[in-house]
Amino acid sequence: TFIMQNSGKKTGIWVIGAWGGVAATVAVGLLAMAQRKAKPWGLTTELPQFADVPMPAWSDFVLGGCEIRQSSFAQATEELVRQNALNASVVASVADDLKELDGNIRPSFLQHSGAVVENMADWMGEVSGTTARDMITAMQADMDCFKDDHDLDHLIVVNLMSTEPFCTYFQWERLGELPTEDLQQRQAQWQHWESMAGLLELPVGECPLPASTLYAIATLELGYDFLNFTPSLGATPPALHELARSMNARTMGNDGKTGETLMKSVLAPMFAHRNLEVMSWVGHNILGNRDGAALDDPLNKATKLNSKSHLLSQILGYDPEMLVTIEYIKSLGDWKTAWDHIHFRGFLGTPMTLQFTWQGCDSLLAAPLVLDLVRLTQLARMRGFTGKMDFLSCFFKSPVGIEEQNFERQFAMLEAWLKEVPEQ
Amino acid sequence: TFIMQNSGKKTGIWVIGAWGGVAATVAVGLLAMAQRKAKPWGLTTELPQFADVPMPAWSDFVLGGCEIRQSSFAQATEELVRQNALNASVVASVADDLKELDGNIRPSFLQHSGAVVENMADWMGEVSGTTARDMITAMQADMDCFKDDHDLDHLIVVNLMSTEPFCTYFQWERLGELPTEDLQQRQAQWQHWESMAGLLELPVGECPLPASTLYAIATLELGYDFLNFTPSLGATPPALHELARSMNARTMGNDGKTGETLMKSVLAPMFAHRNLEVMSWVGHNILGNRDGAALDDPLNKATKLNSKSHLLSQILGYDPEMLVTIEYIKSLGDWKTAWDHIHFRGFLGTPMTLQFTWQGCDSLLAAPLVLDLVRLTQLARMRGFTGKMDFLSCFFKSPVGIEEQNFERQFAMLEAWLKEVPEQ
Amino acid sequence: TFIMQNSGKKTGIWVIGAWGGVAATVAVGLLAMAQRKAKPWGLTTELPQFADVPMPAWSDFVLGGCEIRQSSFAQATEELVRQNALNASVVASVADDLKELDGNIRPSFLQHSGAVVENMADWMGEVSGTTARDMITAMQADMDCFKDDHDLDHLIVVNLMSTEPFCTYFQWERLGELPTEDLQQRQAQWQHWESMAGLLELPVGECPLPASTLYAIATLELGYDFLNFTPSLGATPPALHELARSMNARTMGNDGKTGETLMKSVLAPMFAHRNLEVMSWVGHNILGNRDGAALDDPLNKATKLNSKSHLLSQILGYDPEMLVTIEYIKSLGDWKTAWDHIHFRGFLGTPMTLQFTWQGCDSLLAAPLVLDLVRLTQLARMRGFTGKMDFLSCFFKSPVGIEEQNFERQFAMLEAWLKEVPEQ
Amino acid sequence: TFIMQNSGKKTGIWVIGAWGGVAATVAVGLLAMAQRKAKPWGLTTELPQFADVPMPAWSDFVLGGCEIRQSSFAQATEELVRQNALNASVVASVADDLKELDGNIRPSFLQHSGAVVENMADWMGEVSGTTARDMITAMQADMDCFKDDHDLDHLIVVNLMSTEPFCTYFQWERLGELPTEDLQQRQAQWQHWESMAGLLELPVGECPLPASTLYAIATLELGYDFLNFTPSLGATPPALHELARSMNARTMGNDGKTGETLMKSVLAPMFAHRNLEVMSWVGHNILGNRDGAALDDPLNKATKLNSKSHLLSQILGYDPEMLVTIEYIKSLGDWKTAWDHIHFRGFLGTPMTLQFTWQGCDSLLAAPLVLDLVRLTQLARMRGFTGKMDFLSCFFKSPVGIEEQNFERQFAMLEAWLKEVPEQ
Repeated sequence: TFIMQNSGKKTGIWVIGAWGGVAATVAVGLLAMAQRKAKPWGLTTELPQFADVPMPAWSDFVLGGCEIRQSSFAQATEELVRQNALNASVVASVADDLKELDGNIRPSFLQHSGAVVENMADWMGEVSGTTARDMITAMQADMDCFKDDHDLDHLIVVNLMSTEPFCTYFQWERLGELPTEDLQQRQAQWQHWESMAGLLELPVGECPLPASTLYAIATLELGYDFLNFTPSLGATPPALHELARSMNARTMGNDGKTGETLMKSVLAPMFAHRNLEVMSWVGHNILGNRDGAALDDPLNKATKLNSKSHLLSQILGYDPEMLVTIEYIKSLGDWKTAWDHIHFRGFLGTPMTLQFTWQGCDSLLAAPLVLDLVRLTQLARMRGFTGKMDFLSCFFKSPVGIEEQNFERQFAMLEAWLKEVPEQ
Repeated sequence: TFIMQNSGKKTGIWVIGAWGGVAATVAVGLLAMAQRKAKPWGLTTELPQFADVPMPAWSDFVLGGCEIRQSSFAQATEELVRQNALNASVVASVADDLKELDGNIRPSFLQHSGAVVENMADWMGEVSGTTARDMITAMQADMDCFKDDHDLDHLIVVNLMSTEPFCTYFQWERLGELPTEDLQQRQAQWQHWESMAGLLELPVGECPLPASTLYAIATLELGYDFLNFTPSLGATPPALHELARSMNARTMGNDGKTGETLMKSVLAPMFAHRNLEVMSWVGHNILGNRDGAALDDPLNKATKLNSKSHLLSQILGYDPEMLVTIEYIKSLGDWKTAWDHIHFRGFLGTPMTLQFTWQGCDSLLAAPLVLDLVRLTQLARMRGFTGKMDFLSCFFKSPVGIEEQNFERQFAMLEAWLKEVPEQ
Repeated sequence: TFIMQNSGKKTGIWVIGAWGGVAATVAVGLLAMAQRKAKPWGLTTELPQFADVPMPAWSDFVLGGCEIRQSSFAQATEELVRQNALNASVVASVADDLKELDGNIRPSFLQHSGAVVENMADWMGEVSGTTARDMITAMQADMDCFKDDHDLDHLIVVNLMSTEPFCTYFQWERLGELPTEDLQQRQAQWQHWESMAGLLELPVGECPLPASTLYAIATLELGYDFLNFTPSLGATPPALHELARSMNARTMGNDGKTGETLMKSVLAPMFAHRNLEVMSWVGHNILGNRDGAALDDPLNKATKLNSKSHLLSQILGYDPEMLVTIEYIKSLGDWKTAWDHIHFRGFLGTPMTLQFTWQGCDSLLAAPLVLDLVRLTQLARMRGFTGKMDFLSCFFKSPVGIEEQNFERQFAMLEAWLKEVPEQ
Repeated sequence: TFIMQNSGKKTGIWVIGAWGGVAATVAVGLLAMAQRKAKPWGLTTELPQFADVPMPAWSDFVLGGCEIRQSSFAQATEELVRQNALNASVVASVADDLKELDGNIRPSFLQHSGAVVENMADWMGEVSGTTARDMITAMQADMDCFKDDHDLDHLIVVNLMSTEPFCTYFQWERLGELPTEDLQQRQAQWQHWESMAGLLELPVGECPLPASTLYAIATLELGYDFLNFTPSLGATPPALHELARSMNARTMGNDGKTGETLMKSVLAPMFAHRNLEVMSWVGHNILGNRDGAALDDPLNKATKLNSKSHLLSQILGYDPEMLVTIEYIKSLGDWKTAWDHIHFRGFLGTPMTLQFTWQGCDSLLAAPLVLDLVRLTQLARMRGFTGKMDFLSCFFKSPVGIEEQNFERQFAMLEAWLKEVPEQ
């Protein structure tokens, strides 16, 4: 049948960056949902219109993962509570279970992660050997150990690490001075797994692949699923979609669409449909959490800005003047504030203005998307789907290989997929 | 064939409220488009994706209409230019033709229009007789005269009069104290033309129908098309859709969706799809044009607020706390500014906020919609469509008889209709 | 000497409306300051430039008061903590002392307080007799009982009750239809204590004085000090300043200047000094606490709007278009959000715009002002000052009898008074 | 006597950057004021409270100057009219006189002005010789020629050139890596005219003084007055105040306080007086005029950002997190929009937020300040004042040598000076 038999075993969620703000909120949320201690606000998979879809239960998942800073879920959640981001009483209600989850977290690996991130690290995994392959082997050992410890039937790996420096695999006009030749060569080589796999035999420092991609390979080779919630490279190259299909695994990314970009993907179509020319779209983002701190490095920030920039042109069909900034303002903590100023031309040329201010908690906006993605990935597995999960594009700023950036139409793709009647 | 033969004659646009800001902008825009003196910003029918649809040419239309204030297009446009709303050079480029159009404008009629509007009037049409029917006859005489003068083959009538006081035919919870019995009786009587038509024999003051509805009847009885761009009653009762179909005419309304409500119809679906509970949605609108002045009367304002309020509940599926105000601030002129504050609940209950400020020219936002509607109504006629034009709902705050308020889905309805291949 | 001898006894703060949000925050703040458990943010009297002024110590005050709702400080603070207004850990650190303070609170009295407020009441003081004088006697008994219980040397009474309905003693153009004769007669009669005092012999319902004024009289007759932190009548009439002086007491009001109006009193002078004509100033306020609920009654709201409106004209020297609204939006709790839109005319007539959004906790903005006022009133007493304390005008929206509304100049008045060297 | 005898001759205004947006608006404004064709909005010297001060008449001034781009007042004003900045009818009413003024404009000089500005230049003055002194001589020839042509008794020179790159004479922490030794040496050498003057014998490229300072020297040596409306170096070094005094001349700067910084200088005192800790103050500025284009060069922008940044610390007495950006967004034209986000800590530590959006025309905000400054400088001359005019600090972002940044207190300084009764 189309729907997998349930093995009776649970599925693991392996989070890279497990004691960060988003991951800690995912942990609290997963426990609270499984124990029905909170209402399902923020979760798309809990919408009334999907009540008939046989979703995996929240209690079918177990959380584990790895981290570069020695910390704990208590420490991470306390910080968010102090910043008026996480609700204190929900955290208190799952505190004991949360403490237990600390035991599932192991030291993590960095590679081409940038100086700011490396300076945050005080708890790194050990690799026996010097090649990229050796590092992957170490990553896989941790995953399998978690799987065995909890007798899990499968893992879904979610990348929540800090954004990595810009990788020349991506194209981005604002970096203008990209060595085009190098870029084209990479894009060709990373098209198929056969030609890309050779890179793993290089000493890890010489191998151009960043940690997010090494983790993606480690995951997919074991037949596990890989979700890239950040703008880092992850499983972006087509070679990895190929690997996923060949291993009956699933993958999707990049970069959770949580706030300002979500707004862009609903507002830009309005201007397009009404033929109101967007002359300029300026977006200033300020935030004060660890993600913001990592973005203080211009190289890491370039990756993020690239991910936030391209969708306007895709939706509008032309390039307005565009400015996006992300700045670290410590006092804001997890509260990310975006101010967008949209200058558009109306009938007979009259210029008009729309401004918006979005004030949301970064971690609280991201965490439910992570839970939805994990649940839908599991559903895809149950339905026998393998490869790149295009129907999840509404959750991502830069859905890999997808042209459609209109949120409503992306959502319609998800709805259509969810309503597909499984074959008997 | 599906497509009408072109008679070689032009079609008239008969505007009720012809020297108001919107109408004057429509006049400038129509001339500028026909003479290719301005780029088609703001016009949906000029979008590249509809380039293949055989739209009626702008030069196929002639503008006329009626008005309650003695004025001129020059006066109306000069006011908008002075307020930095209309572009001075575009107006100058069509000034001569605009002056000629003044000859097409006749005095107009009021009925149940409210004290504020009646006080504005200094140029009223004459009725020989005392019944509602007599007033309709006078309205029809003006239309036919315009048609004959210009040898037109058809008229499309557009209601741009100031908003009328709330009519108890509409339902609105905030008016709570509505006499339910009276309401139900009206709704039954106005279901079919046969039972409704009798009202016209009453003395016009006793007949409950406001001017907008008398105009709608006058229009449809002659087989012309009626578009209600205001929240007034117009052709809302089903009896008039019936009349339209029987006369091979077309109708649609109500209330052009130009600014704050347009924003609501694109933002509310985002909150809905992400399962973010909208706890409260507060919208404050300030504007300083004649429309704003008319809304300073609480009875007229009630009609407008009703039209702006209901769509949130329809999209979200529940009733958030809601506040909408419209206030007349003279200094703003045609520049309407809306501030919306949306307080929503995120994951695990954390409250977050979105605010937006919309600064647009009321007339400049409305006028292209009027032109699009007229053009699409003409296209519908060419395609042989009669009755209520549901595919136009994306242009209205309160599309008559339509539940769908999500702008993107409404737009998809228009797209689908435009792409229908006409039968051969 | 100029400075009073310290009796060694403490001074009481008698709060009318003692379990409301502001009062509860005052209680937490007083305890936290006295026990050095919080930094003195928000307290003007703790500014470094006043470090040399010999201020009364926070530990020299004891809090008591009266209330119309049976509640507790725990309940009031818990509500504010849940709304992310009050800091949970500060509240926890003084919880025991707070509980003890509940014993100092007695049932309160209402009179001409409006239906909304009366409906909130479930705990009212008892009066033996029917005249206004009888009610005052009951009020005085409560105060003296508190004084005796704690062996206090003096009381400072602070009115924090919900705003009362508009009293025709105030002048307000927006109420246009005021019976001028009645108003003038009242203003004459209430000029001197001798002519005003007779009103107290009337049955309390026929006496035009509202509860806030009865409390003011009760206070001043005993030689205690009266601070009116609300826009209600309180001790506004000159007769009461006379009474205060004759009893060696002090008084000041009205209406703490906490947010939007504070902003007006710093921004309006900027426009004035730069000769930028303010064409319109629109202010929309939304809030969700009990004060907001009381203001949902148009009569009570009129009092508040009056207090918020007049200062612009006083600062600018002309009347711009002005709109101020206050609306109750429950979801906001104690978070009051103000959006102000200022439309001004620049050089050669070009219109420009300033908008601001103020997001603050109502109770947290008000409470430190109450503490500052109490402390400065005590200092005034130590310095031998009696009567109306004009030097406190920077703390009030409507400083009684003061024309100066420019915040900076009001603050300079306070600074000058604080720096006066006491005579030896 | 204290007041100079009026020679009957006019005074020249010599504008450096004479066909820029600000200068063109100054020209229109001067003509319109002299001919009473516009109301005096925006002019402090026209405030009713100064009606008794015997101000120089607007008709006593003649405008001339120099420019690096071949243009005309017609071209400059047309651009501003098209951007809805300058009022078209005012410009039309003085068009003929404006045209005549073009004859008073000569080619200008650049030195250390930065690549962006140098690329704009197509009309440069000629220097016979290679030293800085030679360039000064050429500058002086132009000024004297203008003086003779119009038989003027005096010149007031106003620097309106594009901002120059950051000069290491200023101190600025954000440039951290400044060679301190070099800085200290300069500051010592530029303390007195005697030690500074030697620099002029250097070849102009080796002389560290930028054009703004060479112009200042040229001006002061002739006994004319120098006003620096930009953040460039100009007459900042004390050596030049000394020179001014010795030549009976006047000087003041730097950087007109027109918008966002004006707001800071009125809002920061409010936070200070209320003891509300400003945790972070983020200001994003976008604009699309030539000034904005010049600031697109990071070196020039550094000068501007320095000027905008320091006053917060001066007013608050501590350093909040601070971010100021200025970005060139062409579509905005002269409309400069600033969004400021102020995150502050209230009572008991609760964080709150103030945001403002300022939408003003850059040139229209600056021009009246220039006119006020010229008029007040002339008044100072009539009163016999020489040297640095500290009483003008309310007009400048960075008043040279002045600690007081509180706008209200700066304005009080101006008021006091204006109200001084001249000795008989």
